[in-house]
Amino acid sequence: MSKFTLAIVAGASAAVGAATTAAIYGMGGSRRQTPNEATTITTPTTITTPSATRTSVERPVPGIRHDDPNIPGPIIPPVDPAGIFQYGFPGPVNDLRSATSLTSAFDRAKRNPHWVAEHITPASLLLRNGDRRHSYFAEDPAIPEKFRAKLTDYARSGYDRGHQVPAADAKWSQEAMDSTFWLSNMCPQVGDGFNRDYWAHFEDFCRRLTSFYPSVRIVTGPLYLPKRDVDGKWRVSYEVIGHPPNVAVPTHFYKIIFAEDGKAGGNVSLGAFVLPNDVIHNDKPLKDFEVPVEAVERASGLEFVGLLPPARRRRLCQEVNCSVIVREYAERQRAIMTPPPGQKGGSPGTALAQRIVQALVFSAIWRHLM
Amino acid sequence: MSKFTLAIVAGASAAVGAATTAAIYGMGGSRRQTPNEATTITTPTTITTPSATRTSVERPVPGIRHDDPNIPGPIIPPVDPAGIFQYGFPGPVNDLRSATSLTSAFDRAKRNPHWVAEHITPASLLLRNGDRRHSYFAEDPAIPEKFRAKLTDYARSGYDRGHQVPAADAKWSQEAMDSTFWLSNMCPQVGDGFNRDYWAHFEDFCRRLTSFYPSVRIVTGPLYLPKRDVDGKWRVSYEVIGHPPNVAVPTHFYKIIFAEDGKAGGNVSLGAFVLPNDVIHNDKPLKDFEVPVEAVERASGLEFVGLLPPARRRRLCQEVNCSVIVREYAERQRAIMTPPPGQKGGSPGTALAQRIVQALVFSAIWRHLM
Repeated sequence: MSKFTLAIVAGASAAVGAATTAAIYGMGGSRRQTPNEATTITTPTTITTPSATRTSVERPVPGIRHDDPNIPGPIIPPVDPAGIFQYGFPGPVNDLRSATSLTSAFDRAKRNPHWVAEHITPASLLLRNGDRRHSYFAEDPAIPEKFRAKLTDYARSGYDRGHQVPAADAKWSQEAMDSTFWLSNMCPQVGDGFNRDYWAHFEDFCRRLTSFYPSVRIVTGPLYLPKRDVDGKWRVSYEVIGHPPNVAVPTHFYKIIFAEDGKAGGNVSLGAFVLPNDVIHNDKPLKDFEVPVEAVERASGLEFVGLLPPARRRRLCQEVNCSVIVREYAERQRAIMTPPPGQKGGSPGTALAQRIVQALVFSAIWRHLM
Repeated sequence: MSKFTLAIVAGASAAVGAATTAAIYGMGGSRRQTPNEATTITTPTTITTPSATRTSVERPVPGIRHDDPNIPGPIIPPVDPAGIFQYGFPGPVNDLRSATSLTSAFDRAKRNPHWVAEHITPASLLLRNGDRRHSYFAEDPAIPEKFRAKLTDYARSGYDRGHQVPAADAKWSQEAMDSTFWLSNMCPQVGDGFNRDYWAHFEDFCRRLTSFYPSVRIVTGPLYLPKRDVDGKWRVSYEVIGHPPNVAVPTHFYKIIFAEDGKAGGNVSLGAFVLPNDVIHNDKPLKDFEVPVEAVERASGLEFVGLLPPARRRRLCQEVNCSVIVREYAERQRAIMTPPPGQKGGSPGTALAQRIVQALVFSAIWRHLM
């Protein structure tokens, strides 16, 4: 399929989320050489410094501007653009955060994380020292106030405070679980049909990987993807919630999964998925959302596997059956989501209560080819 | 005017660009204390380390997981989230660039700069060693290929390759001027009516400041601002150009002006302006686009004056008349914009040629209160 053919796969719906991502970002890299790259390559092997070809009289005196075009050699810059740093480094600052349960970087312009990394193992998931009912959503005081997402920004927004690293992955200590409840680990997520449903099943899929791999790392984050508009132009369009409007509602979310074989310098099975921040039917195959890692890199401006040699890379979905298992999740979520007094905990009421719990197991058999 | 009153000033048109920016970002900072900030404040003055209160038997052994809730003390984390860095730092990487004419940071997700800083002085603007006709637009090889804006991305996009640091500010050497032509100093800008007109007059305003201040620093960059949609929700919406679509078209541009009095530790007169990336009529007062610096900070996620003590700050538009002077700019631009063979240089043809050059000076008298 050509780049152009892929590029016309439009839209950001559940049906075409992965295809769009791949179409827009995955295939774009025509590797033509720019004039500048060519210049770099043709750097002469014999380098003559300017001072070696001029007499001491011709050499510009530091601090004295040399603006006579008849005198060869470099001009002493009359300005100092980097002097702006005397007023502070403009940024962006990533607010790199390292907690027991996660490591993350924050996007101050959108008041969402750029990415949140976690690590789970068979042993860590067996521990049950933390209880979600004792954790509370909280603004992150490590982020400067004017760039911080607020609890009030989410209130009555219609969106869940969607964990990027799930609380359920950090049950090994209460402190670890608590540290997943900072708003710097949240993005506005569609609740019913996504955060409380398909996305939750997807998180469960990640945990199940520890049945096959001794160590699993997951990087999760938001995306803001363009789609083709009625006028044929591509546009990024996303809601902004809060008072004033300042927290971006991502159009999509990604997870990059690193399933490690547990050996030093061993194999790493990679899976990259992009899901729309929208209702996804439970019968939608997870594999429909699989994309090349590079597609997420191009879309997010991030790099996830720069130091992982290609020889160590495997494809996760060739080793395990990449599909979600729909369990009685809605019931469990309803119990969990009931907010303590004074806390908003989503709107799990009527719509969710009236749902028929889907207990069908769409894919109970896992292939494990290791 | 209350926060709420300001917040309902909607839209992103030329008429309300500044008001919207201030409304959305400038006034949002309710400084209520979060529970976490309170916790920080109430840190006990007497600190007891956990090891001092437990016997050596109770102390967790490093490497051995301590998951018995009956034993007090911290749990040795069974996971290592920061271990993700073995595969590389995800980023974002700012691609900080330091050239003779500018210093900048790049936004790899949007393929535009975050900000570009420059420095001009009366002396630097007098020098005429660089000629724009000898400079060529070029992709920036310092940006990794997959995050770099391409010449082909701009081709037939309908947008100008809009300098953030203007070429005309770097005439002091050809190399300085050349270094303003990297695409990492460009954003897609509306040509007629903006980049070649009002924005150019605004750049001229900045240069004229050197008549009153011995040293002027300017930080320029793009913004992607929300506006209120027909459904009452706030949305950010911007076009993305290129093949595949990957270079964002900003909705607005900002300039933060630092007019220095030339004394060490002296006064700095600040001006912040936000203009829509759209046609702006020449009779629109520049002051209509003035915003608090903090409004640009909230909107961009950047900080511009963090290390500038409030006592040293002055307000630029209280010292000089902040207004553009419309000169015979279109004629000059037409000569400049004629592209060399094989290069796209905008579409300066019919529309611009047919324009009546406005030579009226709207505001020839500058107040200088210094």
